[in-house]
Amino acid sequence: MPSLLLIGTGLVGGSFALAGRAAGLFDRVVGMDRDPKTLREALALGIVDSVLAGAVEEALTEGAVAPIRRFDAACVAVPVGDVAACVRAAAPCAEVVFDVGSVKSAIVDALAPPPANYVPCHPVAGSERAGPAAASGGLFRGRVVALTPVPNTDPAAARTVRGYWEQLGARVLEETPAAHDRRLALLSHLPHLVAFAFMEVAGRADSLAGAGAGFQDFTRIAAADARIWADILSSNAGNVRPYLDDLLATLRSFAASAEAGAGDLRQRIAAAAEVRRAVDSAEP
Amino acid sequence: MPSLLLIGTGLVGGSFALAGRAAGLFDRVVGMDRDPKTLREALALGIVDSVLAGAVEEALTEGAVAPIRRFDAACVAVPVGDVAACVRAAAPCAEVVFDVGSVKSAIVDALAPPPANYVPCHPVAGSERAGPAAASGGLFRGRVVALTPVPNTDPAAARTVRGYWEQLGARVLEETPAAHDRRLALLSHLPHLVAFAFMEVAGRADSLAGAGAGFQDFTRIAAADARIWADILSSNAGNVRPYLDDLLATLRSFAASAEAGAGDLRQRIAAAAEVRRAVDSAEP
Repeated sequence: MPSLLLIGTGLVGGSFALAGRAAGLFDRVVGMDRDPKTLREALALGIVDSVLAGAVEEALTEGAVAPIRRFDAACVAVPVGDVAACVRAAAPCAEVVFDVGSVKSAIVDALAPPPANYVPCHPVAGSERAGPAAASGGLFRGRVVALTPVPNTDPAAARTVRGYWEQLGARVLEETPAAHDRRLALLSHLPHLVAFAFMEVAGRADSLAGAGAGFQDFTRIAAADARIWADILSSNAGNVRPYLDDLLATLRSFAASAEAGAGDLRQRIAAAAEVRRAVDSAEP
Repeated sequence: MPSLLLIGTGLVGGSFALAGRAAGLFDRVVGMDRDPKTLREALALGIVDSVLAGAVEEALTEGAVAPIRRFDAACVAVPVGDVAACVRAAAPCAEVVFDVGSVKSAIVDALAPPPANYVPCHPVAGSERAGPAAASGGLFRGRVVALTPVPNTDPAAARTVRGYWEQLGARVLEETPAAHDRRLALLSHLPHLVAFAFMEVAGRADSLAGAGAGFQDFTRIAAADARIWADILSSNAGNVRPYLDDLLATLRSFAASAEAGAGDLRQRIAAAAEVRRAVDSAEP
């Protein structure tokens, strides 16, 4: 009877539980969530079979769980700023512990050293939606999951967790926490920062009536969860900054080209479009 | 036998011809395009029934067309910088002429004064795709079409053209060219400028492997046609500039909040997300 302790029962955690159960990885899921309403919703939706009430640290460290059972795995799916404390509390209660946070160095550094059975993960599969009702057993299929083990990580734990993701149809990409955080700063965190800033600007307009599909696509990520994203942008601000500086300079120079009706504008757009199209045609 | 002269047989022009024929607005479509390959493709796809070869101005003004037939309508669907010349050439050959350009003031100013049977239009229905093969008879259904008549515009011509769009399922929004260009600077032109600049930055990275759905959405418009977009960004640079300046300042202040781990970051993101969600729940 493989069992999962799910700490954080929102979109990503809930999706892992649904997918893991469907794939036969777990047949019993115990849920915890700092928000009682979210937890009740996850229970009502069948994402978790039972719940552990109360704050994660107290519930897991005061002997309430360990004597009852040891979990095969614990999945920590909470905002980045809360991951380290949950991992520390869950590590003694499960064979392996992993998280799904979008920033890895800040978590690993806060654990210093991380428990050997903790495997830092980041499935690049979020969405602007949130909560257990948005969870889906197919969320990770065809997606990339970053695995960022550190020297202290038990290789057997890393193999186990890698196996989970692969059995859910994801492609695992192994890298260091630092390389991950630099990569995601460009691929995800800067786009979110820009989309949030753009919507702050747009919110000052009299009306946004008549926006087209391009606007909808460009700004979709700006509807993301504020608590999750404030944590991500704060924890990875140092890696976002150089890309942001490059973007600010590039925007100024693009605008100057446009204002001058410069001949290089079309070439620059064509080159940018080519980079974008190559992303589409690359393997997933 | 209502007939349409289609100048520019790419995505938007081709879609108008397909939709107009399906709705019974026209039963004969004659195509022109500066690119012979595009024109042949439009003919092969049945978007146009026949073609007029050669440059638009010469073919239409040297008596080659007018003696043969007068068209019920001429649709000018070419890059913004070429619209005015095509409108001027087409106006004597058709009852009504309209264009689909994303910028209106530059076109109206270049015509000074515009022919009375010319109705400036902008269907907000483009895409990052281009060419006749991407054309679709459903492109305008549920979309907004801006109609920007000027004092010189014949009200009967405006009514006719408004009727075309409405019969294709679009919602017509009437406004001045200046108001349109300010509105689109924020809703479309700035997002494209940002997406192009972002892809120029991203193109300097070693790899873009592992990008998620958020990245795909945010950058989709960066795959747009370079010729069309160089024209748009040049012609409307003056309206884009104040929004860009606001965005640059907002980005700097957002980054400063993130770096300071400031308490206002979450509130700012939440407010931006709220503006974005309101766009989704507003009527189309």
